[in-house]
Amino acid sequence: MRALVFDGGLSYQTDRPVPEPPPGEARIRVRRAGICATDLAITQGYMGFSGVPGHEFVGEVDAGPVEWVGKRVVGEINAACGRCETCERGLPRHCPTRTVLGILGRDGAFAEYLTLPVGNLLPVPDAVPDDVAVFVEPLAAAFRIREQVQPQPEDTVQVMGDGRLGLLIAQVLAATGCRLTLLGRHPAKLALAKKWGIETADTSTNLPRADLVVDATGAPGGLEQALGRVRPCGTVVLKTTCAEAPAFHPAPIVIDEVTVIGSRCGPFPPALAALETGAVHVGPLVAATYPLAEGQAAFAHAARPGVLKVLLAP
Amino acid sequence: MRALVFDGGLSYQTDRPVPEPPPGEARIRVRRAGICATDLAITQGYMGFSGVPGHEFVGEVDAGPVEWVGKRVVGEINAACGRCETCERGLPRHCPTRTVLGILGRDGAFAEYLTLPVGNLLPVPDAVPDDVAVFVEPLAAAFRIREQVQPQPEDTVQVMGDGRLGLLIAQVLAATGCRLTLLGRHPAKLALAKKWGIETADTSTNLPRADLVVDATGAPGGLEQALGRVRPCGTVVLKTTCAEAPAFHPAPIVIDEVTVIGSRCGPFPPALAALETGAVHVGPLVAATYPLAEGQAAFAHAARPGVLKVLLAP
Repeated sequence: MRALVFDGGLSYQTDRPVPEPPPGEARIRVRRAGICATDLAITQGYMGFSGVPGHEFVGEVDAGPVEWVGKRVVGEINAACGRCETCERGLPRHCPTRTVLGILGRDGAFAEYLTLPVGNLLPVPDAVPDDVAVFVEPLAAAFRIREQVQPQPEDTVQVMGDGRLGLLIAQVLAATGCRLTLLGRHPAKLALAKKWGIETADTSTNLPRADLVVDATGAPGGLEQALGRVRPCGTVVLKTTCAEAPAFHPAPIVIDEVTVIGSRCGPFPPALAALETGAVHVGPLVAATYPLAEGQAAFAHAARPGVLKVLLAP
Repeated sequence: MRALVFDGGLSYQTDRPVPEPPPGEARIRVRRAGICATDLAITQGYMGFSGVPGHEFVGEVDAGPVEWVGKRVVGEINAACGRCETCERGLPRHCPTRTVLGILGRDGAFAEYLTLPVGNLLPVPDAVPDDVAVFVEPLAAAFRIREQVQPQPEDTVQVMGDGRLGLLIAQVLAATGCRLTLLGRHPAKLALAKKWGIETADTSTNLPRADLVVDATGAPGGLEQALGRVRPCGTVVLKTTCAEAPAFHPAPIVIDEVTVIGSRCGPFPPALAALETGAVHVGPLVAATYPLAEGQAAFAHAARPGVLKVLLAP
């Protein structure tokens, strides 16, 4: 099959074997896949991953348990063992022997086919087109924040980063009724958020310190900046993962008694529901769609500063 | 009066003016003062402090409101404005215009006299000797953790650091009935904890990842080590403050969705009560007591690896 493969460099290959789904898994023909910051980081060595990257997808089951074949699906990207202490604690996304689609020990979505356990799959209602359904995974990551913190209407919230994830997080948190400001550097993207009724400000703006700050900058200095924006005893939600290890002063965490919460993958059902009802806007986030054969150009496009979501259509 | 003064270097001075308490404050004759890791850090430039350091003390009120004069007291070290938004939120220890005894904008306890607002003072019962009462401030910092997290009996807890603060924290958290291990490098200090009924292990020991990890190492790499010891979705309480900014990978916080909680000063009443009832042992923590004139030697002693609490007797 055709696939993008990373093994130190990113290449387009046409002779990758079509994967056979092991028992309990389904094979999915990928219809759309999204390139995210984690994929860009992977091509810079993050996670030491080699293989087919890609974890945001919508596709159609073409092999596996008969009740799934023919269904259009999205899929939770963490494949857990289901038996260990962590799984039994209800944290399968943190299973120590998990594989993660296109990130850890499992080939991903930048290919014609992928496989996932059927327990990871969620059928997509007909009303949700592919170009919308492909946002379920990053939107679930935004909904994860609402499982971790519950902003109240009187709470001030600053979301740092007007990129793909920041624009989703701002919509998901603003829906709680909190007093939210999206901070970014890109007037066009801030204008998009403004159109959706979200307060925005340039990153350089000095705002009063907030109860909750979300770092979705994707930048190595994001945590330090967030600590400068949060009030004493406030909360920072950290979404940024990157390969770099900048010099970091932990003392402000202690002095201001800040709570820093790492936040990764989230629940698919509320994300899919929000896409179905149109509660979250994703259409304007698609910057371009490339065929798989032009995957390198797609990555280059996605890496350009200020570019929103680049999709692949295998 | 006699005082230790830091202004780039630490000196013993004999002609420092005796402070006049402003309205609402009391002047306290210091009976005992303790040297802590923050004081050592201050002499290395932490907080950019200059003046008289020292914030752990017990003393006797000798001027100020008449109802306080003659009382033996300990004192909360943060002096807040009492009127700002942060104070009104119930966070006076985080008042943005606060002064902090011997740390920020206010001369401290390594002197014959200090002044503090009377609202900061707590009378010390006769049954609690000076060498015990001087531990109220660091013990309050240990009790702060119990305001921030509530370990359950089934929770595993690792306290990193068998220094002064680690030995207090281990006692305070072990009293909750959780499954606690104190990690350190010093057999004699670990033996002390063991005598108090606390499980101990050498820092190099590979234990199963814990629900709660407290970094009381005082070392720049403490946070990164703690992240290696905590389970996914577990909690790290960060007590270490130091002037250094080591290279730091925030990605493990995100990947394991860890909650990192900064923890600074704490409530005096439960700390004083625990000293009065003997629930927490501090006697064996005193390594030596020096007169103020030998303050530099006292600092050098306190800075020696493995040394527990060094006191000053002004």
